[in-house]
Amino acid sequence: MPITVVGSVAFDAVRTPFASSERMLGGAAVHFALAASFFDRVAVVGCVGDDFGDRELELLRSRGVDVGDIERVSGGETFFWRGEYGFDLSSRTTIETRLGVFADFQPRLSERTRAADVLFLANIQPGLQRAVRAQLPAARFVALDSMNLWIGTAQEELRAAIAEVDCVILNDSELRELTRRPSLPAAAQEVLALGPRAVVAKQGEYGAALFTEEGFFSLPAYPLESVVDPTGAGDTFAGGFIGYLAAHPAQEIDEAQLRAALACGTALASFNVERLGTERVQCLRGEEIAERIAALQRFTSFSVASLPLRASRRQQAGGVGVAAGG
Amino acid sequence: MPITVVGSVAFDAVRTPFASSERMLGGAAVHFALAASFFDRVAVVGCVGDDFGDRELELLRSRGVDVGDIERVSGGETFFWRGEYGFDLSSRTTIETRLGVFADFQPRLSERTRAADVLFLANIQPGLQRAVRAQLPAARFVALDSMNLWIGTAQEELRAAIAEVDCVILNDSELRELTRRPSLPAAAQEVLALGPRAVVAKQGEYGAALFTEEGFFSLPAYPLESVVDPTGAGDTFAGGFIGYLAAHPAQEIDEAQLRAALACGTALASFNVERLGTERVQCLRGEEIAERIAALQRFTSFSVASLPLRASRRQQAGGVGVAAGG
Repeated sequence: MPITVVGSVAFDAVRTPFASSERMLGGAAVHFALAASFFDRVAVVGCVGDDFGDRELELLRSRGVDVGDIERVSGGETFFWRGEYGFDLSSRTTIETRLGVFADFQPRLSERTRAADVLFLANIQPGLQRAVRAQLPAARFVALDSMNLWIGTAQEELRAAIAEVDCVILNDSELRELTRRPSLPAAAQEVLALGPRAVVAKQGEYGAALFTEEGFFSLPAYPLESVVDPTGAGDTFAGGFIGYLAAHPAQEIDEAQLRAALACGTALASFNVERLGTERVQCLRGEEIAERIAALQRFTSFSVASLPLRASRRQQAGGVGVAAGG
Repeated sequence: MPITVVGSVAFDAVRTPFASSERMLGGAAVHFALAASFFDRVAVVGCVGDDFGDRELELLRSRGVDVGDIERVSGGETFFWRGEYGFDLSSRTTIETRLGVFADFQPRLSERTRAADVLFLANIQPGLQRAVRAQLPAARFVALDSMNLWIGTAQEELRAAIAEVDCVILNDSELRELTRRPSLPAAAQEVLALGPRAVVAKQGEYGAALFTEEGFFSLPAYPLESVVDPTGAGDTFAGGFIGYLAAHPAQEIDEAQLRAALACGTALASFNVERLGTERVQCLRGEEIAERIAALQRFTSFSVASLPLRASRRQQAGGVGVAAGG
């Protein structure tokens, strides 16, 4: 299997100023897998209750997602989350969380999912992330997500988990919270020092940034006049990002590939927010993704051909030359 | 004169978590002029009190800034602002504002400043902006800045001022506030519909975005591990942006020039925040600007060479081709 993702499979109830749903398929592993499925084969490791039906599984299967390691816990209820978004969609309030079978989630990986080339540890307890990671010692690329809850309650374990992966994908506010550094570049450097070779900062409507030893890269979000529901955008981003890396095998994933992957994640996330839950991504076509990546290329291209810069009187007197070609 | 700027000339007292000053040269027109002076000749229209000394004027003159239209009001005090920044520098509190001579500021433009090719209307009462703008009917490019105060108290006048300029440079939160649109792209489109051909959204640590009829462009801020004082960053940005446009005469300023100008503004702003007030920009060298623009080019370059995207079972059955070249 090229990609394994371990994380939540859920039902969400969401209300935004523009749409609402009382029950729809959600969860980090679901959003990730749907996005990654455009690039390579992906298997989900997760758990659901009796209320999870064939319809939901069929939706994943229709995108080629391997659902063999989604454990159905008899007598249990699937993780349920209810949330509301404010007017500008940047603030959200959790109304209700019923962990259900997810409370006792113990990821069980089959031979197939353990043989994955690339692993994404979606946001679960960092100790579980480490246990899964240990089962794929030969994986070519391992990335993890997390959340403020674990920064607050299990930070040592989270730092240990971070030290064991190749890439960390967090919101910029989480990177600041984890390191207590107000500057994002400083926070990212501190996380890089823990061990990973790449740190991706998700910045919501402002896009995403990539920090590596080689340098810095930043992409804006795809500009949308209307955003309907941001739920799952971060995991959809991760799915596009990891999916691209899995689909482009290389002995060593380099800076250029990470940048291209960031563009794929950005494009996928932009579709996710256009409609409720998985509605938009599940009917997405490959041409649409390629078009949006080409647009991101146009949105970020510039050239400063010549730059005759003027010295101050003092610099002129001192003979400092300031003409410079861009 | 290639560039005229009309706006505040001030003394600032600033305290940030990393530095403080009880009295330093500041004001929108000062920050703008110092930045623009690297690109072309610039004249300031403003007013000061008896407390404004030759030392301050000499600082501006050393960068070639024309200070002939800075009116000294006898018996008056120069505009004074005292502010404090929070830990992450993104929130600031005004402790004290003494408008002094700025309260009755009536811009008086000489023949020289009225003959400017390019005009920047820094943040002053929109009625004054309109009166100045009317005195330069033949200017090739006119841009304005504003603030939430005028959006709240003089919105009709501000909208009329916007209709009369080529370019609006506002914080993204101000664009949202002005249009009551939570989506920045939607807000920018609404401001474009008022008349300007370009809207620049300043996004602080996230960079800046350009909206025109032709398209969208976005640049991240130059990544800095340590920011000392953001005071004046927006006006320094505007100075680099407008300065570049003034220095590259063209019958019609096109999208490519606006993008290059945005890179210049971004580079200049990144220096401004490295030290208190004008400290960093006043000793800046041209090579440093060129280096930072080249770095911005590197920080935003990517290439998605080939993109084989996988169809869903349903799409495959329907014969939808999804292979696409990036």
